[in-house]
Amino acid sequence: MEHYLKPDEQFDELFPNCRIIQSRGGFRYGTDAVLLAHFASPGSRDRHCDLGCGGGIIPLLLAATTPCPEITGVEILPAVCDRARRGVLANGLEGRIRILEGDYRDPALLPAASFTVVTANPPYQKVGAGLCSPDDEKRLSRTEVNATLPDVVAAAARLLEPGGRFCLVHRPERLADAICALRERGLEPKRLRLVGRDGTAAPSLFLLEALRGGRPALRILPPLLLTEAGGESPELRAIYRREETGR
Amino acid sequence: MEHYLKPDEQFDELFPNCRIIQSRGGFRYGTDAVLLAHFASPGSRDRHCDLGCGGGIIPLLLAATTPCPEITGVEILPAVCDRARRGVLANGLEGRIRILEGDYRDPALLPAASFTVVTANPPYQKVGAGLCSPDDEKRLSRTEVNATLPDVVAAAARLLEPGGRFCLVHRPERLADAICALRERGLEPKRLRLVGRDGTAAPSLFLLEALRGGRPALRILPPLLLTEAGGESPELRAIYRREETGR
Repeated sequence: MEHYLKPDEQFDELFPNCRIIQSRGGFRYGTDAVLLAHFASPGSRDRHCDLGCGGGIIPLLLAATTPCPEITGVEILPAVCDRARRGVLANGLEGRIRILEGDYRDPALLPAASFTVVTANPPYQKVGAGLCSPDDEKRLSRTEVNATLPDVVAAAARLLEPGGRFCLVHRPERLADAICALRERGLEPKRLRLVGRDGTAAPSLFLLEALRGGRPALRILPPLLLTEAGGESPELRAIYRREETGR
Repeated sequence: MEHYLKPDEQFDELFPNCRIIQSRGGFRYGTDAVLLAHFASPGSRDRHCDLGCGGGIIPLLLAATTPCPEITGVEILPAVCDRARRGVLANGLEGRIRILEGDYRDPALLPAASFTVVTANPPYQKVGAGLCSPDDEKRLSRTEVNATLPDVVAAAARLLEPGGRFCLVHRPERLADAICALRERGLEPKRLRLVGRDGTAAPSLFLLEALRGGRPALRILPPLLLTEAGGESPELRAIYRREETGR
């Protein structure tokens, strides 16, 4: 399998029989991507698209954990897109996952209304709100130098068929921005889940699902708690499938 | 004190030296009002207005628990307004609390930009979303037959001076409605607190503070938990001041 790797890259095991290629010094996927994949959970009749898929973490996770037959990842950086494609090949998933190189803001990239589930783990920082990495992949993954939150939402609204779901993960301070951007594009927030260390802490992330053309009525779910009694919570262990692997 | 009561009314003690007159068969204040008063906590330089004050629960609580010197309650139903006024007199609070009879949607009722803190515990149900009580007070307190959520937000935006705060309590399913209505009126959501039975349950209410002309950035606080180990949580006991009274 080593022939899939370029210098300074390595395989990281996600689940048994599912590995991702990551750059040793570059951006690495985080818990947020894993939680988003679990939150979105497309089914056997879904057509899924991940906006800004990076090294392919969400497509690979969905292929490993859901029956979703058609998974598309869109990535703008050619080198990162190439890495995602090699990761798909290394897992033998080229029949279920395709990785498209391009800008998801470009309407020529994909036809409108062609997916039932869209996901995005967009950059969290506004331009000027923090340090901006000189590394292309880190910078585009963390800071809105390229697509902004309204851009991601606009792309999701265009790509979803009516009744389709858009799932995103973001930081609490952007919740109002996200809800207003979604409504503006006809995506109705329907399911919100806060993610926190434990039941008494302020949340560190939120997961939000919006329905294209949905009726207004938001359900706030019980929080997703990361720890319990000083260790990983049972839910987080289940999401990472640590029980099964005994890690 | 009994001369302040009409038939079918009674005094309920809120705190030592603070009592409210409630109708025996009508609408009675709930935990949501108590949590909202605590969440808003105006200070000694604030001018406060409560929109739809009912029997005066929030003005009375704020007079009892905060140094706020100027508290106004607006109530549309004449009989309920009269009961709130008698409650203010019974507590000797006529120097700090005034109760206005009228519709807060009417711009002639109060001058614009005349308050620093506005609160509202609006009706939770949309018209048609549930049973509608034949009792005027219950119906207007529970169902948007009169003012809707956008109406309350519009009134708050008009009454607040720049930098002033609007605090409201509502049900989780209306969070997206509330956030979008606030933004539309130039009130920026800044502080959100979910209220739930415990740290693992779905929330039953939310408390939200928005700043007139604030910069976008929402802080989601740790949740307000109502129970702990099968009893009332320490925070709820503190809000109700049960420690001090030994109840």
